[in-house]
Amino acid sequence: MSNALSLDSVVLSSDEKELVILDQTLLPNEVKFLHLTKAGDIWEAIYSLRVRGAPAIGVAAAYGIYLLSAQEETEDMARFLEAFKGHKDYLNSARPTAVNLSWALNRMEKVAQAEKGSHSVPELKKLLLAEAHAIREEDIAISRSIGRLGFELLKPGDGILTHCNAGTLATAKYGTALAPVYVALEEGWKDLRVYCDETRPLLQGARLSAFEMQTAGVDTTLICDNMASLTMRRGKIDIIFVGCDRVAANGDFANKIGTSGVAILAKHYGIPFYVCAPTSTIDMAVTCGDDIVIEERKPEEVTEMWYAKRMAPEGVKVFNPAFDVTDHDLVTGIITEKGIAYPPFDVSFRRLGIQ
Amino acid sequence: MSNALSLDSVVLSSDEKELVILDQTLLPNEVKFLHLTKAGDIWEAIYSLRVRGAPAIGVAAAYGIYLLSAQEETEDMARFLEAFKGHKDYLNSARPTAVNLSWALNRMEKVAQAEKGSHSVPELKKLLLAEAHAIREEDIAISRSIGRLGFELLKPGDGILTHCNAGTLATAKYGTALAPVYVALEEGWKDLRVYCDETRPLLQGARLSAFEMQTAGVDTTLICDNMASLTMRRGKIDIIFVGCDRVAANGDFANKIGTSGVAILAKHYGIPFYVCAPTSTIDMAVTCGDDIVIEERKPEEVTEMWYAKRMAPEGVKVFNPAFDVTDHDLVTGIITEKGIAYPPFDVSFRRLGIQ
Repeated sequence: MSNALSLDSVVLSSDEKELVILDQTLLPNEVKFLHLTKAGDIWEAIYSLRVRGAPAIGVAAAYGIYLLSAQEETEDMARFLEAFKGHKDYLNSARPTAVNLSWALNRMEKVAQAEKGSHSVPELKKLLLAEAHAIREEDIAISRSIGRLGFELLKPGDGILTHCNAGTLATAKYGTALAPVYVALEEGWKDLRVYCDETRPLLQGARLSAFEMQTAGVDTTLICDNMASLTMRRGKIDIIFVGCDRVAANGDFANKIGTSGVAILAKHYGIPFYVCAPTSTIDMAVTCGDDIVIEERKPEEVTEMWYAKRMAPEGVKVFNPAFDVTDHDLVTGIITEKGIAYPPFDVSFRRLGIQ
Repeated sequence: MSNALSLDSVVLSSDEKELVILDQTLLPNEVKFLHLTKAGDIWEAIYSLRVRGAPAIGVAAAYGIYLLSAQEETEDMARFLEAFKGHKDYLNSARPTAVNLSWALNRMEKVAQAEKGSHSVPELKKLLLAEAHAIREEDIAISRSIGRLGFELLKPGDGILTHCNAGTLATAKYGTALAPVYVALEEGWKDLRVYCDETRPLLQGARLSAFEMQTAGVDTTLICDNMASLTMRRGKIDIIFVGCDRVAANGDFANKIGTSGVAILAKHYGIPFYVCAPTSTIDMAVTCGDDIVIEERKPEEVTEMWYAKRMAPEGVKVFNPAFDVTDHDLVTGIITEKGIAYPPFDVSFRRLGIQ
């Protein structure tokens, strides 16, 4: 296992009494692990993006609700379940729009509801712990499978471009877009080169991807988003891996703002462009990318955030979309844990059993 | 004349005793005009980019060497010319690679050399003043001509995207890429919309273009560079104007990093992409863009500059090219002061009398 994979974004402590989170808001300047036990602290860690990335948030929520429930001293099942529900609603309020947060909490609640009749409270706590571990292990398995499939696409010495952070920090382990690099490291490859778009305005590429790749010992180069074109023109990039937030039935997908621009450049320069997508992100109910609503965020992220002083005139209008949609005809392939989907994506999704 | 065109980047004071420069390093937070008379202060203003943009630097240098020479009390021509040469070498050392700096100083020196035999020192000072004014007036005429030609391409309500700053701040007046907008304002148009790429890492779009467009009363929207794709996809952009540093004989051109990416997006979305280029930037001795050397700058501009704290891991490699080259086949037209060149550019350059 490489160094970087010791950078666990979210785990349960070995005594099973603390949620241990790498505080991503302090990266890359400080590597600090938070040991959380209290509801308010776990809520705050999710709310303040100390843990981020859909899969990592899901794992944090699962361990979080386990810990808070395990701290309940009652042996009365009804009172235990009432407390459980309270913890669930509270944690869910930390980021109400984060799909994986409610998904993980609901999955934990299903165990409680399914097992409440046939088990004691202490027994149910053990089942909840097992479920939380399962959520984490399944996420690792999915990431690792995506990593293996992506790794098969690589040649020694390849230059890889990625956008935003879909790395080990965003998941339980391996990540999605960076998983092929970690698998390559496990295979003993030492000569891959990774280029990280800094990814304005939140700088996940500079702060997180460059950090985790450098920590893993990978030859890492940071570029501003607008340098990707020249970097490709110079022949530095052989393949592009990006993560995604949501994939439509036709293969259009939403990901961090700027992804569609990278895809258009890749097509122009003839560079393969792959999306790393757990099947859980593929939503066959969404026909195409135009049906995906794009969140717009506050102007200050562009004009003030991170800066020592304001960098744009007061009162200027700012268009600050958090995501964009990339058309499926720009996508070489979509790497899921079940296999790589190639165009036409509706057909290949069905072949992979995605419904 | 609109408000913004009162934002003179560089003029001589009305008593002809001071060089008045808008300190661009303080923008957009503070609008401060510097009144310079001393050699060291003029040198520092050029060196520290308080005045920037090739044409504006040329004008500053012309007025600067006039002022310093005019301060010489000698009436002896040989001693005057010796002092002139000293001032010229000193000012030229502020930015040795800025072509317009040495171009303007050489042009002033030619006047001194041509007229030294037939005029007294006081008379020569008047000729130098006239030449400096001529340099400024010619620059304004060139920019205004580019602006008129670009204006003819606009429709009321158009959305215009620009990259970096090639506006009035970078020239004596009007700018190049933003000149069509200023001409439209002079024509009474009020409904153009201008989108400014922030232009990492030096943020000329956020700090300068957004500032001067907002000051001019234009409907101005700031975006991060990686948001240009979604902005185009949404149909917000009807035409793109960019400046340029150098144009090759085949129409390839070098401009601020990120320009080539904008051009590739424009082609993908079918949006007209125009380069605003005084004929002085067209270098027929350069065959194609690959022959243009791209300056690479220090990593700290990407990892630290402007920020309250470092935004990338210590020691990470950074690729920080200041410019990129855009292929001529991505260019709709090149707007010079003599007319608009359309492909094939080598032919149309010759038709415009460019050699």
